[in-house]
Amino acid sequence: MTDIRQQSIQEFLDRLASKSPTPGGGSAAALMGAQSAALLGMVCNLTIGKPQYSEVEEDMRVLLEKSELLRARLTGLIDADIRAFQEVMSAYRLPKQTSDEQTRRSEAIQQALQKATDVPLQCARICAELIQLSRTAAQQGGKNVVSDAGVAVMAAHAALQSAALNVHINIGGIEDKQFAIAKSAELEEILQGSAAETEEIYRLVMSRL
Amino acid sequence: MTDIRQQSIQEFLDRLASKSPTPGGGSAAALMGAQSAALLGMVCNLTIGKPQYSEVEEDMRVLLEKSELLRARLTGLIDADIRAFQEVMSAYRLPKQTSDEQTRRSEAIQQALQKATDVPLQCARICAELIQLSRTAAQQGGKNVVSDAGVAVMAAHAALQSAALNVHINIGGIEDKQFAIAKSAELEEILQGSAAETEEIYRLVMSRL
Repeated sequence: MTDIRQQSIQEFLDRLASKSPTPGGGSAAALMGAQSAALLGMVCNLTIGKPQYSEVEEDMRVLLEKSELLRARLTGLIDADIRAFQEVMSAYRLPKQTSDEQTRRSEAIQQALQKATDVPLQCARICAELIQLSRTAAQQGGKNVVSDAGVAVMAAHAALQSAALNVHINIGGIEDKQFAIAKSAELEEILQGSAAETEEIYRLVMSRL
Repeated sequence: MTDIRQQSIQEFLDRLASKSPTPGGGSAAALMGAQSAALLGMVCNLTIGKPQYSEVEEDMRVLLEKSELLRARLTGLIDADIRAFQEVMSAYRLPKQTSDEQTRRSEAIQQALQKATDVPLQCARICAELIQLSRTAAQQGGKNVVSDAGVAVMAAHAALQSAALNVHINIGGIEDKQFAIAKSAELEEILQGSAAETEEIYRLVMSRL
């Protein structure tokens, strides 16, 4: 399959809507996160170089560097989510006639589920970071692009909540209880306060419109 | 410019992040909405034809038809938002030396701002409808795709809140107070209860994981 980043928007949406199980919600979450990061980049790029915002120029440069790094990681996760899901499906399709086959299949499923938990967890972590960065963009970004910081925070929050669903699903099938508990705890920590923070940043944007 | 639907995901994100003012948050909102609609399509397509879900098959067919129509309208709005913004910018760039020119420029700006208000308002209205449709998908969709209904509702909500920002910005510059008040009221009506509904549907999805 070709790299999904090279697919046209129409093709990606058509595949998302189709009966093919990939791409699914996990890839959509990563793309929403990438849109958030791209919008933070836009806020920076349209603030940097403007004399009236020279005081925040250095902060905007730092923000731009961070958001562009996170964007690259998120576009990578669009594909990573598809691969992780396909590995889970392949593992379930392994033969299970003999006891040896059953053991090997079970191990493959567990390994695949752990990976399919880690991918959306990475997405969630990056999106939580984007929510934080949106605050800087909302506070310091140029007045004519502050609404884009508002879209960025909403997109990051939706992506975070979406990725969380995919973490939950995959954790459900994991037998290694220590792994499952650790990942659940990690997710809860990431989610902690994110909804309230998103609302606060959105309101900040509204007040600057 | 080529139709944005034919742009690759990477190219769209690169342009979104760039210092070019279009595409911006309005197009990102429409794309998030389109992802929501596509995910509802996915839920339907992976529920229809499964014997264990035959009872909801007719409802899923109706939902699919609606979500696919809304998806087509939203992908159209990605471009429409760009054109509306460019018209506003073009209007501001009109000559304003003579009194005649000033009048013509003023009228052009007002006309462009009204259009730039209507485009995100359409986006908001469609996304509010997608939130409603997500409830059906969350209730009746197959258990193995219910998380995609959860991503759909988060994406629709983020798109709605994002479109709302763009309505607010453009209304701010409109001199026809009757138009401005009517559009503001329409937006408030669309937003009414949408956050609480989104949370309820998300929780419903969580309970079915």
